[in-house]
Amino acid sequence: MARPITDDITLQELQKATRNHGMPLEGLRYDITPVGMHYLLTHFDVPFVNADSWRLEVGGHVANPLVLSLDDIRARPQVTLPVTMECAGNGRAWLNPRPRSQPWLNEAVGTAEWTGTPLAPLLEEAQVQSGALEVLFTGLDRGRQADAEQWYQRSLSLEQADRPEVILAYAMNGLPLPPQHGYPLRLVVPGWYGMTNVKWLKAITAVTEVFSGFQQKVFYRIAQDDDDPGIQLSRMFPRSLLVPPGIPEFETRDRLLPPGPISLEGRAWSGWSPIAHVEVSFDGGGSWAAATLDPPVGIHAWRRWQFEWTAVEGEHVITSRATDEAGNTQPLEPRWNAKGVANNMAQTVVVRARPGVILG
Amino acid sequence: MARPITDDITLQELQKATRNHGMPLEGLRYDITPVGMHYLLTHFDVPFVNADSWRLEVGGHVANPLVLSLDDIRARPQVTLPVTMECAGNGRAWLNPRPRSQPWLNEAVGTAEWTGTPLAPLLEEAQVQSGALEVLFTGLDRGRQADAEQWYQRSLSLEQADRPEVILAYAMNGLPLPPQHGYPLRLVVPGWYGMTNVKWLKAITAVTEVFSGFQQKVFYRIAQDDDDPGIQLSRMFPRSLLVPPGIPEFETRDRLLPPGPISLEGRAWSGWSPIAHVEVSFDGGGSWAAATLDPPVGIHAWRRWQFEWTAVEGEHVITSRATDEAGNTQPLEPRWNAKGVANNMAQTVVVRARPGVILG
Repeated sequence: MARPITDDITLQELQKATRNHGMPLEGLRYDITPVGMHYLLTHFDVPFVNADSWRLEVGGHVANPLVLSLDDIRARPQVTLPVTMECAGNGRAWLNPRPRSQPWLNEAVGTAEWTGTPLAPLLEEAQVQSGALEVLFTGLDRGRQADAEQWYQRSLSLEQADRPEVILAYAMNGLPLPPQHGYPLRLVVPGWYGMTNVKWLKAITAVTEVFSGFQQKVFYRIAQDDDDPGIQLSRMFPRSLLVPPGIPEFETRDRLLPPGPISLEGRAWSGWSPIAHVEVSFDGGGSWAAATLDPPVGIHAWRRWQFEWTAVEGEHVITSRATDEAGNTQPLEPRWNAKGVANNMAQTVVVRARPGVILG
Repeated sequence: MARPITDDITLQELQKATRNHGMPLEGLRYDITPVGMHYLLTHFDVPFVNADSWRLEVGGHVANPLVLSLDDIRARPQVTLPVTMECAGNGRAWLNPRPRSQPWLNEAVGTAEWTGTPLAPLLEEAQVQSGALEVLFTGLDRGRQADAEQWYQRSLSLEQADRPEVILAYAMNGLPLPPQHGYPLRLVVPGWYGMTNVKWLKAITAVTEVFSGFQQKVFYRIAQDDDDPGIQLSRMFPRSLLVPPGIPEFETRDRLLPPGPISLEGRAWSGWSPIAHVEVSFDGGGSWAAATLDPPVGIHAWRRWQFEWTAVEGEHVITSRATDEAGNTQPLEPRWNAKGVANNMAQTVVVRARPGVILG
């Protein structure tokens, strides 16, 4: 079983770990993750935005540039979508050696109901011109990374930007976006890793060249080293997570429960296609048993699974893994890469069944 | 300047750091911290509570035991209080050697508007009997710590429990408590460190002996070793925190800004008495200049401060410290103790002023 490196965490990593946060895995019990439990990764700082003076500029290679207020955007057609979103760096801390960034273990995920307006009609209104290749999204969050000052920026191809489920969201779980989730407006691209979903939008720009900014061409890639162009990240690879059963040991976070029947539950998702099945193993992946799947919470959201287990006295290691309809499945060991992204290795939970344990 | 140990973080600490979270310090800009930015420390697990079947038991050494539903509690007199709450472990990661628990740096704080009903009239209705010494609060969160299974429990003396500002809160910032902040009901004891404010209340019990449970007599104490009975924690020691100015460097979280005038701002609080003054130093505490103080957000909440600074080109280390009317002030170096609590050493922020930097 892979264990994270524990002998050289840096101040820089700790500074990120105390600002950012995962979803405590007991949060897997909720179809829609309560605000504040949803994972949060702020790349630079949370900007302080006055929504009255804030404007979204839609421009670049368009015939009809737009400058829109929040009221303008709220007056447009409205959709609400439950979307499971995961940080591309989820699982980073299990890699060895550990790439230096936010040291996530397993919990950088959440499912929110995002309310907003579809992007495609807005691009149509702006009249994106022939010759445009991509749409560039610029956030109000600014910082310096890899020796360059930058706004946080990501692009989508025109084809991806025109997908009907791509929205500009101004509400999360029925309330205005919290500041830390992109107030007043963010991009939501269902199925893609979190870095795509640019927060605090200031500009949407049709561009005639493929965007080569840091967050697109350097950081969020599966690459072996700096010379490897690697693979650009897009959709989330399948993952299953288990609500750790029983009660925790404070020091280790290992689990305690009384011997006997217990219902295990978790959630599984993939950005590539629907989840086909979830399996559970109690012998480190030597053998697997199928879990029962509930319907997904939405086309772009996780599905709940359950597995009826009888714990006999002793120590157990529970592993679950998801497989999607495209045939992608989770590995048991991490696949190392230089940026520490897309590590969807199966989660393991250590459980001790002891007579007399009282559950919470 | 004290630096945290960075060479031996454990998996246990990292597991806590990715579940729990501080308030990103740009959140100091808000009088009331938005939900999800407020610091969060879950001692064991977040319980999954059905509020319809949930009941609060008020019992023990009382003549009139009560069993109350959430509706019963909401029908009682209602108060709303802005309260600054800080984790007793804030600052732990600056200690050397570092006690093993949640490795906070500086940001385990937040200010919420808590709505609930005062505790004292409820105790009066239950008719606490002569001979009762303390009131014990039991949460629904359960786990094993230091070789003992336990519900999370803390007590208050009768005198403290009868303070008029001590409330049972069912709403945070105007909405029902989020699960992670104690849904459906939590204790709020303004001025005291976070561990006092028991979440997910299941029972309030008048007891005739001083409570000697783990979370009271062992963990939350300022002690030099296991043999030292030490000092029981209660009120928050004064602290000032600064909104890190300028824009961040991703790797180091150090700050960049252009030379010139800039308004520094922060917040200061103390659980012992009102804040008397906040000072700022640019030479590591050799000399200090007074900041301007706004009125406090509430009797039990932080006050904003400002300081007009002109940054000259080069590197600066900004330190701020608060002093309360009781004469407590912040040290420049940490005061080590075995549990890593109550380290209110002054925060330092590294800032580089460089021509051409564009602020976000």
